[in-house]
Amino acid sequence: MRDIFHEELDAINGGLIQMSLLVREAFSDATKALLNSDLALAEKVISSDSAIDEIYHELDARTINLIARQQPVANDLRKLVSSLRISADLERMGDLAHHIAKTARMRYPNCAVPEILKNTIVAMDKEGSAISEKMTTVIQYGDTVRALEVDADDDEMDRLHRELIATLLSDSWEHGVETAIDMTLLGRYYERFSDHAVSIAHRVYYVVTGEYAGDKL
Amino acid sequence: MRDIFHEELDAINGGLIQMSLLVREAFSDATKALLNSDLALAEKVISSDSAIDEIYHELDARTINLIARQQPVANDLRKLVSSLRISADLERMGDLAHHIAKTARMRYPNCAVPEILKNTIVAMDKEGSAISEKMTTVIQYGDTVRALEVDADDDEMDRLHRELIATLLSDSWEHGVETAIDMTLLGRYYERFSDHAVSIAHRVYYVVTGEYAGDKL
Repeated sequence: MRDIFHEELDAINGGLIQMSLLVREAFSDATKALLNSDLALAEKVISSDSAIDEIYHELDARTINLIARQQPVANDLRKLVSSLRISADLERMGDLAHHIAKTARMRYPNCAVPEILKNTIVAMDKEGSAISEKMTTVIQYGDTVRALEVDADDDEMDRLHRELIATLLSDSWEHGVETAIDMTLLGRYYERFSDHAVSIAHRVYYVVTGEYAGDKL
Repeated sequence: MRDIFHEELDAINGGLIQMSLLVREAFSDATKALLNSDLALAEKVISSDSAIDEIYHELDARTINLIARQQPVANDLRKLVSSLRISADLERMGDLAHHIAKTARMRYPNCAVPEILKNTIVAMDKEGSAISEKMTTVIQYGDTVRALEVDADDDEMDRLHRELIATLLSDSWEHGVETAIDMTLLGRYYERFSDHAVSIAHRVYYVVTGEYAGDKL
């Protein structure tokens, strides 16, 4: 009985890894679509969101079913409840990539990001990719070292977010209110993407160690 | 055994109701603080967020504990898993009220909302209050009629959100980029608050009827 249970637990974790790879790809493609005004790529990200949602619903059903059939306790149950939370965070990360792609599409054939902010978005994309790559490793191997590393990445993302807002507020900003609105929302999408990745990494940390990541930082 | 289980289930639902009342109060106080530049009220909302988080963590532990001890199946299990999701949405709604209050505090003694947008924010507050009041009734009584009504409220919230953005983009906008950024983020907080309430109402609808609310709309 226990072997079937752990096989099923591994399959659920496999689903989370698959979701996190799709989310990373959507995020990275959305930034490319945004910076290069690539309409086809934006459309690809927008339509791929339903694939992420599908795995999310399937994992939910599978997890609830496993709890009902095998009635796990203690750490096994915590792992499964944690999976429910992680898949919800991943689903939301997919939504945020979707929002970035929709901004690219809305402004096509123009580029939503003015020249002066392109480097900031490139840097935010780099942080977002790094953090979601670490998050995937944390999900896959229960890597508690990486699970604490994401906080430094998130701090850097927050710094870039402040830098973006400072650019919008500087005297040299000459792109008007509409572009400022786009950039404000884009900044928020990148920052929230990173927050969800941190939340996932900390959740795995808690399941593996029984301690809150916040207490170690 | 079943009686203790249902008593405990009621207690968890009581915790969700308590959370939703605190969230509604925080949301309504945050708007008052925002419109009246009321620093004391803003501080009250900001510090009350930890009370909401505390109930959230307590409910989580209690729900997981109940699943472990009583090993519910079928609908009882679905109810408990749904509670975990609902408390996460409520916790996030509390965060959004907290963000609104922080904007009020950041701009004090000035008012973050210019005269031209006050009516829109009043209307968004009214919708947000209506929707969260219905959501509380849905949680409390499993009211499936109200659970479908929230979609019309959410449509109205989305319309108000578009109206807000249109005001920022109109030629008559004379409050500059900084206020536009504040208003863009505030608009998003109100809109997301409403989205989470819809998500909660739909979740209860599903637990009560076994059908997706989306199929009925």
